[in-house]
Amino acid sequence: MKFRAEIDVMPLKELLDPQGKAVMLGLKNLGIQSLDVRIGKHISIEIEADTKEEANEKVQTACQKLLANPIMEGFDYELIEI
Amino acid sequence: MKFRAEIDVMPLKELLDPQGKAVMLGLKNLGIQSLDVRIGKHISIEIEADTKEEANEKVQTACQKLLANPIMEGFDYELIEI
Repeated sequence: MKFRAEIDVMPLKELLDPQGKAVMLGLKNLGIQSLDVRIGKHISIEIEADTKEEANEKVQTACQKLLANPIMEGFDYELIEI
Repeated sequence: MKFRAEIDVMPLKELLDPQGKAVMLGLKNLGIQSLDVRIGKHISIEIEADTKEEANEKVQTACQKLLANPIMEGFDYELIEI
């Protein structure tokens, strides 16, 4: 079976987000007043697995060991069979 | 009214995604065989607007003029009232 994980890796809320602040300024120049902007990564992974549980385990391992830095980032994802 | 837009900006499918290839290699080293990996930006913006249509217009403008490079990237988003 084939699955696709749509993963968002975002900086932890408590951390300063300089990229977010830069975008806020850019939006202001476009005349768009924003209350808060946070920037992270969106990662789309296609994998094969025998069951959804196995696919879920693979994605969890990928996020914890490679895609997200646990000290500064949090992650969440959606797992879809394709 | 307050709204939050959860925006994904991804490289166009036809383009080579070197970051994606690098992650594929990293996953392989973790023993996770992936079929395809694509990496983009996830941007979360909180804005104020009188109506959902007005909020939608602001987010469209932000994506088209600032957040996504139309030559190399596509975007899509979810707009939620908060």
